[in-house]
Amino acid sequence: MFNFQYYNPVRIVFGKNTIAELKNLISRDKKILLTYGGGSIFRNGVYDQVKSALTGYNIVEFGGIQPNPEYDTLIKAVDIARSNNIDFLLAVGGGSVIDGTKFIAAAICFEDGDPWDICAKGAPVKNAVPLGTVLTLPATGSEMNCFSVVSRASRVEKLHFSSPYVFPKFSILDPETTFSLPRRQVANGIVDAFVHVTEQYLTYCVNTPLQDRQAQAILKTLIEIAPATIANPSNYDCRANFMWCATQALNGIIGCGVAQDWTAHMIGHELTALFGIDHGQSLSVIAPAVWRHQRAVKKTKLLEYAYNVWNISAGSDEEKINSAIDKTIDFFRSIDMPVTLKDCNIVPGNFANIADRLAERGMILGENQNIGRNEVVEILNICSG
Amino acid sequence: MFNFQYYNPVRIVFGKNTIAELKNLISRDKKILLTYGGGSIFRNGVYDQVKSALTGYNIVEFGGIQPNPEYDTLIKAVDIARSNNIDFLLAVGGGSVIDGTKFIAAAICFEDGDPWDICAKGAPVKNAVPLGTVLTLPATGSEMNCFSVVSRASRVEKLHFSSPYVFPKFSILDPETTFSLPRRQVANGIVDAFVHVTEQYLTYCVNTPLQDRQAQAILKTLIEIAPATIANPSNYDCRANFMWCATQALNGIIGCGVAQDWTAHMIGHELTALFGIDHGQSLSVIAPAVWRHQRAVKKTKLLEYAYNVWNISAGSDEEKINSAIDKTIDFFRSIDMPVTLKDCNIVPGNFANIADRLAERGMILGENQNIGRNEVVEILNICSG
Repeated sequence: MFNFQYYNPVRIVFGKNTIAELKNLISRDKKILLTYGGGSIFRNGVYDQVKSALTGYNIVEFGGIQPNPEYDTLIKAVDIARSNNIDFLLAVGGGSVIDGTKFIAAAICFEDGDPWDICAKGAPVKNAVPLGTVLTLPATGSEMNCFSVVSRASRVEKLHFSSPYVFPKFSILDPETTFSLPRRQVANGIVDAFVHVTEQYLTYCVNTPLQDRQAQAILKTLIEIAPATIANPSNYDCRANFMWCATQALNGIIGCGVAQDWTAHMIGHELTALFGIDHGQSLSVIAPAVWRHQRAVKKTKLLEYAYNVWNISAGSDEEKINSAIDKTIDFFRSIDMPVTLKDCNIVPGNFANIADRLAERGMILGENQNIGRNEVVEILNICSG
Repeated sequence: MFNFQYYNPVRIVFGKNTIAELKNLISRDKKILLTYGGGSIFRNGVYDQVKSALTGYNIVEFGGIQPNPEYDTLIKAVDIARSNNIDFLLAVGGGSVIDGTKFIAAAICFEDGDPWDICAKGAPVKNAVPLGTVLTLPATGSEMNCFSVVSRASRVEKLHFSSPYVFPKFSILDPETTFSLPRRQVANGIVDAFVHVTEQYLTYCVNTPLQDRQAQAILKTLIEIAPATIANPSNYDCRANFMWCATQALNGIIGCGVAQDWTAHMIGHELTALFGIDHGQSLSVIAPAVWRHQRAVKKTKLLEYAYNVWNISAGSDEEKINSAIDKTIDFFRSIDMPVTLKDCNIVPGNFANIADRLAERGMILGENQNIGRNEVVEILNICSG
């Protein structure tokens, strides 16, 4: 096991009717910027629950944060927050609203030039306005971590940052808020959570049987609950288990002391920046291709995955690994996710460009740092379809 | 799944040579009370590592905290801390030193009468001196939770309290500090961690497949690593996995949203208070007896435990449950733990007294509140030997 530090001070408030707890979680003297996305919270009653819980609070609202939250939008929120002396941010929405609000929180306090440098140049975040979240879309795990991914359309960039200052003070997870989600967003969320786990699990073995089993626990549960979670939007138990799986997938626990490989995410971010495809869709296409390409260095864990997650015990090692990857692809297909670039209308002519963009940022990917420009093209060819 | 809150701000610093990190974890201006137990830290080099890391710090030392930390001892530390204006406590040791230090931390700030009321009457803890830990004995999970158990010999009492104020600010877990542990303490620790899991897992089902698998992950890993962990004290990987299992067993994650039953601990605490037996030994004796007695209400989870932890798939439901309990007892025996009261030299004549003590404190046990005085005697009879 590698040495590691684990620190995660996010308070999770989970369950039915928990939005009402907001009044116990935010001090009455705070001036709140309430951030949200495209307005689904008005249709599903979440906005009303939030406003009801915060009756008497001083609230400024900022809506319109896009999926793949856009820098130009977030900077407007920063200006509004500064001019209104906002001292608490409440993000109500999915991972994009939360990621965007983390960026707003850091940017408000950023005084060393262009806030985009936080993402583009790793400029250090020295402080942030405190934030809390009401999660409505299980997927990214952003509600219980200090990561954020922000896009900037004018530069065709989708970049991430992290800082302990942007851990939410609390996150409210009421599974009932997910009942009205579009089917596509639920499927995206299932894949996002699934691949968050595999990025921390399918690497090389450093003798971490507990973390491996914790990873398998999330994967097996997601596979088990996916059909009913999609088919029955108001099945509370399914939505609750899905929500908790997605949070646990990226709160740091399964990543303790293990090798990690975020290749599928890094390539996927480029696909989203260039072609606008959903984050979850980029992962359902790319992740299995990464495993096929890296099967030699990931062999031990892929065999473990085959046996423990998919109950595959027959055949040669190569057959087991193929079967595990095929079953994963079948699983993604079963919830109507794309599994090839062709499914996403991305054609081979673009592959070199994608690899170039990663190479330009000096990104050598893979837990063994063996995925450079050529290998990215090979991975994209594997899933071209 | 039940509604729940999860909050755990402890920073875990895990791995080889991590004691040196102390200087980055405690501000130089703190006046530290360094607490420890019977002196093993002098023999295994941990004391020297701590003092070396804290060169130049203002440190007062307080040793001699007993297994089952004793109120009369802890109160002396409170006096020393107050008279020395201590503003940070560093506990170096196992669960008893950490639990005791949590009590010291709360008692220093307690101004509403006798600090024993914190344990005996649930007097509210309104503040505590901040504390950190260097863990040397994986077992209790105290390094990553806000619980504490304290004994008071003059009253023959062993009682617990909890408060968010006594979460350690950090806990350093260096598996190498465990290499010199006596075999018996390692076996005790394995059982303690194991039963922490079963107390949160073997209850009734509320549709929590992820938490169930997370619980099974710890149990299976403990079973897998126990033989080599005991046989090869300097096997780093085994000790590391054991250490991380013990922490994860009681940091709250597996307890999220599930029914819990701390019957084995509550009866076990009485056995320790009355007869001085090790905490781990009380659990290896009592826990399986609780499952046998409560097999009807715990049936679904016991069958799940049989299948998923012990790979038992043959036989009737009753046979599967018997086999799972028998295998657990065999496992405990395999690491030389007692499995009957007779093994601990406790004879049937004492059983009514034990049940009376719990009844006097108004304790009705079990996840269904169905274990009263008579049932406690029945459970004790099951494991009398």
